[in-house]
Amino acid sequence: MPELRKDPIVGRWVIIAHERARRPYDFKAAGATHPRSQVCPFCEGQEGMTPPEILAYRDPGSRPNGPGWRVRVVPNRFPALQIEGELEKRGDGIYDRMAGIGAHEVIIESPRHHVSTSDLAPNEVREVLWVYRDRLVDLKRDGRLVHGMLFKNVGENAGASLEHTHSQLIATPIVPISVWEEMTGALEFYNYRGRCIYCDMVQQETAVEKRVVLDTPYFTAFCPYASRFPFETWIVPKVHESHFENIPGPAVDDLSRVLHEVLVKLELALDSPAYNYIVHTAPFDHAGLPHYHWHIEVIPRLTKVAGFEWGTGFYINPVPPEQAAAFLREVEAATLRPGTSVRSESTEGRPQPVRS
Amino acid sequence: MPELRKDPIVGRWVIIAHERARRPYDFKAAGATHPRSQVCPFCEGQEGMTPPEILAYRDPGSRPNGPGWRVRVVPNRFPALQIEGELEKRGDGIYDRMAGIGAHEVIIESPRHHVSTSDLAPNEVREVLWVYRDRLVDLKRDGRLVHGMLFKNVGENAGASLEHTHSQLIATPIVPISVWEEMTGALEFYNYRGRCIYCDMVQQETAVEKRVVLDTPYFTAFCPYASRFPFETWIVPKVHESHFENIPGPAVDDLSRVLHEVLVKLELALDSPAYNYIVHTAPFDHAGLPHYHWHIEVIPRLTKVAGFEWGTGFYINPVPPEQAAAFLREVEAATLRPGTSVRSESTEGRPQPVRS
Repeated sequence: MPELRKDPIVGRWVIIAHERARRPYDFKAAGATHPRSQVCPFCEGQEGMTPPEILAYRDPGSRPNGPGWRVRVVPNRFPALQIEGELEKRGDGIYDRMAGIGAHEVIIESPRHHVSTSDLAPNEVREVLWVYRDRLVDLKRDGRLVHGMLFKNVGENAGASLEHTHSQLIATPIVPISVWEEMTGALEFYNYRGRCIYCDMVQQETAVEKRVVLDTPYFTAFCPYASRFPFETWIVPKVHESHFENIPGPAVDDLSRVLHEVLVKLELALDSPAYNYIVHTAPFDHAGLPHYHWHIEVIPRLTKVAGFEWGTGFYINPVPPEQAAAFLREVEAATLRPGTSVRSESTEGRPQPVRS
Repeated sequence: MPELRKDPIVGRWVIIAHERARRPYDFKAAGATHPRSQVCPFCEGQEGMTPPEILAYRDPGSRPNGPGWRVRVVPNRFPALQIEGELEKRGDGIYDRMAGIGAHEVIIESPRHHVSTSDLAPNEVREVLWVYRDRLVDLKRDGRLVHGMLFKNVGENAGASLEHTHSQLIATPIVPISVWEEMTGALEFYNYRGRCIYCDMVQQETAVEKRVVLDTPYFTAFCPYASRFPFETWIVPKVHESHFENIPGPAVDDLSRVLHEVLVKLELALDSPAYNYIVHTAPFDHAGLPHYHWHIEVIPRLTKVAGFEWGTGFYINPVPPEQAAAFLREVEAATLRPGTSVRSESTEGRPQPVRS
């Protein structure tokens, strides 16, 4: 059973994943974390290689755990947290721990062997977003869990161990510290000014325009004023809402286009970099919050300069966000046919599961 | 002039380094950040390749910016912050910024082309530590600066762009968020219990022993209970002190041995991994603090699994710290002659400045 442990100084919780434990000599070869296979377990027709599915959007008449799906959710084979068990909260001297209870799911975004969300058509992205919503709504019912974090790693430098386009969902019995810090900071602003800081950001960004990448009826995509990373891009809904899972239908349609276009722009501008995106959303156990505002942060993984920045929170960004946004605005993503791959090395139809 | 910008939500300051700005296409080739050279600018005899020295420990009769030094401090050629100018604090709508004033110095730890602190003899490490102290004491006098962060990157994966063993010092007009969070968390504990949390940690760790790597008269080195990274190791002084620069002489002697031995152990155990270490110390503008406690965090850079962890603060550590500490205790570093290189590919005497 993995364990959740709390840093007694800053309050950060860490997953100590005993089940994933490796002997130190495993690190000597900088090898892959997961066993490699010649066949991609996420491709249509290989459903038997994953644990049984939790949810799938399927064509009529197709059977669970067989072909005929469009988006498919399965438990992670190497879960950081386990879904069965009790929380067993307890102290250990000055320290706090609990059992590593939680969900760790994989959202397989396409039956075909695409490698990035940008390879999907916007209507395929739309279904992925609906799946995100459905899984959050379902996991919310589990009284042990308080937060669901959706994220995506593309490319080895971003932590992806399988190439086939997929997202992950980790639902936890604690609120991750980054969400906690955002909620605390946003509440402080709200208490002082009576407004949501994210709403203010959207207003200022759309007014001054210079950091805006895309502006649509429901969303503004911009490079934030204090970007930690070159070409960091946030996608923020224009209408205030703290919980992603409350997103209305027309906004899902819009977001599928915005997310697709932002990723296409980044990939065209930066030659298909490794990237992460993370859906920041309020914890389950809160009703609608006036001070918090869900959003997506997209982070291309370009620099290794950032060595010590991990440990210190002290970021040096060599590209001013105004310059990054101007460049991304210029990229002619709009001329691309939706669903056209921007990757010259497109691997569609050629199973090639492991990138590293 | 670089700019310091504050994230209005979490309060994180970021350096936007205009001077380092690159055009987006620079990122297409995952190349080095700094121009490469065949000659190592940090080796003895190449003093003309660096900016003029700020401080050097020299042999009697040797001249500044010539050979004959043992440890040498120079301004970073590609500084993240600039030492000349006024702070120019101002708002920009809801945002806050100030000029990127600060010091960015490089501490060249040896005239010889060693690649890690572990390649130095403990008495050479001792002089490096004294230089750390001297630079903090000097920079403290600059009323614009409030904090000095000492850190070291070894290996390309840890962000090092030059191989020759060196540390860096960034002194800033703001307190880095990681230090701020530690100070806030530690103060909360102190207000509640009337004790320093780090002192409590040292007490519990030395009592239960299972996470201890080394225990000496002045220091305890241990893998912290909520380690974010495999083999993360903290070196914490046993006597309470908030400011590194107040370290007494005998503790410097002891620390030089502890730091050297911890690094040798990590390099033997993990086949000379890339690593960072960071000296966490209280801001300049505070007198001795009863609740904060300086320490060094050593982080081997082993996993890429940690992709999204950057952005979320949500860490998954596959190696329990008890297991890491047990392994490090077993490594027979003590049998090595001090100053013996543990790197089979030792590059001493063979200028080879760029690792990547």
